[in-house]
Amino acid sequence: MLKNDQLAEWDRENFFHPSTHLAQFARGDLGNRIISGGDGLYIEDRDGTRLMDAFAGLYCVNIGYGRQEVAEAIAKQAKELAYYHSYVGHGTEASITLAKMIIDRAPANMSKVYFGLSGSDANETNIKLVWYYNNVLDRPKKKKIISRWRGYHGSGLMTGSLTGLELFHNKFDLPLSQVVHTDAPYYFRRADTGQSEADFVKQCADSLEALIAREGADSIAAFIGEPVLGTGGIVPPPAGYWKAIQAVLKKHDILLIADEVVTGFGRLGSMFGSDHYDIEPDIITIAKGLTSAYAPLSGSIVSNKVWKVLEEGTDKLGPIGHGWTYSAHPIGAAAGVANLKLIDDLKLVDNARDTGTYFNQGLKAALDDISIVGDVRGEGILAAIEFVKDRDTREFFDPALKVGPQVAAALLERSKVIGRAMPQGDILGFAPPLCMTRAEADMIIEAARDAIQSVASKLG
Amino acid sequence: MLKNDQLAEWDRENFFHPSTHLAQFARGDLGNRIISGGDGLYIEDRDGTRLMDAFAGLYCVNIGYGRQEVAEAIAKQAKELAYYHSYVGHGTEASITLAKMIIDRAPANMSKVYFGLSGSDANETNIKLVWYYNNVLDRPKKKKIISRWRGYHGSGLMTGSLTGLELFHNKFDLPLSQVVHTDAPYYFRRADTGQSEADFVKQCADSLEALIAREGADSIAAFIGEPVLGTGGIVPPPAGYWKAIQAVLKKHDILLIADEVVTGFGRLGSMFGSDHYDIEPDIITIAKGLTSAYAPLSGSIVSNKVWKVLEEGTDKLGPIGHGWTYSAHPIGAAAGVANLKLIDDLKLVDNARDTGTYFNQGLKAALDDISIVGDVRGEGILAAIEFVKDRDTREFFDPALKVGPQVAAALLERSKVIGRAMPQGDILGFAPPLCMTRAEADMIIEAARDAIQSVASKLG
Repeated sequence: MLKNDQLAEWDRENFFHPSTHLAQFARGDLGNRIISGGDGLYIEDRDGTRLMDAFAGLYCVNIGYGRQEVAEAIAKQAKELAYYHSYVGHGTEASITLAKMIIDRAPANMSKVYFGLSGSDANETNIKLVWYYNNVLDRPKKKKIISRWRGYHGSGLMTGSLTGLELFHNKFDLPLSQVVHTDAPYYFRRADTGQSEADFVKQCADSLEALIAREGADSIAAFIGEPVLGTGGIVPPPAGYWKAIQAVLKKHDILLIADEVVTGFGRLGSMFGSDHYDIEPDIITIAKGLTSAYAPLSGSIVSNKVWKVLEEGTDKLGPIGHGWTYSAHPIGAAAGVANLKLIDDLKLVDNARDTGTYFNQGLKAALDDISIVGDVRGEGILAAIEFVKDRDTREFFDPALKVGPQVAAALLERSKVIGRAMPQGDILGFAPPLCMTRAEADMIIEAARDAIQSVASKLG
Repeated sequence: MLKNDQLAEWDRENFFHPSTHLAQFARGDLGNRIISGGDGLYIEDRDGTRLMDAFAGLYCVNIGYGRQEVAEAIAKQAKELAYYHSYVGHGTEASITLAKMIIDRAPANMSKVYFGLSGSDANETNIKLVWYYNNVLDRPKKKKIISRWRGYHGSGLMTGSLTGLELFHNKFDLPLSQVVHTDAPYYFRRADTGQSEADFVKQCADSLEALIAREGADSIAAFIGEPVLGTGGIVPPPAGYWKAIQAVLKKHDILLIADEVVTGFGRLGSMFGSDHYDIEPDIITIAKGLTSAYAPLSGSIVSNKVWKVLEEGTDKLGPIGHGWTYSAHPIGAAAGVANLKLIDDLKLVDNARDTGTYFNQGLKAALDDISIVGDVRGEGILAAIEFVKDRDTREFFDPALKVGPQVAAALLERSKVIGRAMPQGDILGFAPPLCMTRAEADMIIEAARDAIQSVASKLG
């Protein structure tokens, strides 16, 4: 590891970092951090600073850092066969085994897995499949996709359109016209504080119904949603939400895509969020937890219902014109097999449920008396704290105050714990690796309380 | 390696292969092939069949199979730190070093590298950057992208729209309206066989000029092109083409994106196709050769001119709202560093020029007397043979005869050599690893001659 300034200089001069203030970074106003290793919940940078990562990278390192079982599987695959494509019936033992392991774990009625690399490209595949599906069924107009405000489904042109967050739309001319948005199931931010959860759910379903009526059901192909809203604020759905939404979709023959990039493979304390909330999707998007990010891999799990139409399509039209060079990349597939095995061996789904419940209850209890804490919510090992100026009226802070980022910065500075300020609203998110212990949960809770109090006292 | 039928059964039941006849595969009418290892130009399947891969996977395994230097780099990175994100100024020694190595090798006036995973996602990034660029410059209407018929730029919704091939458009409702297409620089397929190369080039430039006039220059943001057309038929440009095209683009202040996914890092016998043809791009797309496919990694190389505007944008608007979770993934970055070093150490760019020239000359000489061979063309270690019913009138075969696929099948069956039938037209493509020797080139040439003759005699 180079420890002189050369690496920092190369970084500033050559590296275009994502989600970064480019000018500040190039000028050196914004520092860099060069990560050199990690184990469990911890990462370490080249200067020897050790940080507890309570967001698991970008909620993806579900098994924790430094698991040699997965590293060994990657090493073995790299030595034997780093690459071959999976076009026209080609595969490797790892990619075939992983496909089988995914379908074995997936909700009922799932048939096949198409492999990609990222959640974004998997959702891109999903839209292509949905359009193809309706063309095969001779419904050429049925093409629009409904997404939710505050949904997160990627950062591409179409997938960034599915995403319902301003940061990903502004100055990028998104959303594109093929995507329309409906209400976020965000009960905490309901307009009328007196509204019951049941009434709010009915309002969401009615609003969806009205949107479909406005656009015409024959123009709507699919609805996409995360079982729990992720980057949009980490918001579990109000009780009964998915049942009400699915009833509307069924009525209008609209496919349901469950985006389980964050929730798949255990984060909620169930293998899939769809099982957790009794969702019956037609397509499921998977990524992050599939390999715990040890190698890039994503997937589109296609149901029997959709698969049958795809088969019909190729019988009519010949081989399907969709493929990524790195679909089912052997390194990613080997990482996936070892990762899913480890999740089983370490009983991480159970731990996500048990330690997750402990964590969420602990956060609630510890933060209850802090006036700027408006909401503490979560499910499994996924939690969010939302800050408000006034908890009775639920008045929010002026965004210019950047209360969320202030708390995340205080957390890092005071306790060396990484949480994430979610991009829209003053929300601090936690998504630690699923191997988190109760002792580690306590440390995060204590660090959160300390950081929030320090910011609250500054805000006066 | 499982050798019983179980793996084949799992494959058929669970795995959605790209670019495959899904129904035939599911029914077992189309067999699978499970690859277990490889070295140099060769791959081996689980049944012990050894094949010479004269297409380097999907023209991506440039260093050849089984290079332990790259496997070791991947193994080391996996053990030390398999993942951390690169958002907000984070990085690893490998990702920073690779950014520096890329800019060192890139054409003049290039500034920074944004890392992605695939050529498709890199082109997605490029369009986002181009749109953002024109928004920062307050030219909100300047957004359309010009691509060429027969160009290949990806398989997503927008990137598949850039792609100018029917297979990727039909039944997927592509191209989207933001993309317009201009002529392919395909001199062999000119309408008037008497037309000179210079006149054909002028026609391409005039046709582009006319398209821009029709659409309005203030609506056109960028032009994207591969230095040599790849999947559209492996077609090197006619002499003077890029000079003529660039003059038109400069006149109308239209950015040039050079898609070097196939040509980058040596395939043409130069480090970049842009240098090979005196192209001065504003953005360069890289992927395949960057890691020789040992791990997924792509990049968008951004010029100084574009970067300055991106900096200005973040000074005005704050951090840029674009990021992939796996941007600059440590495993891909480590593979890239080791791969680029190996390309230097083994002098593969020189070999691509020297052995490539030998290969192309040898193909031409060996196939000259076969009546169905209409054209033999190539550059560096990239070559194509185009089949015609009548070489004097250049009458093409009925596509239903599938002459291209027939030749590729004969090549595999008779000589165990993999070439690729390009998807549009009767074209057999070769893109062997850059480490090919003259003896291996001779074997491919001989196998090609044999396969073509066998198909010709069947047709004849």
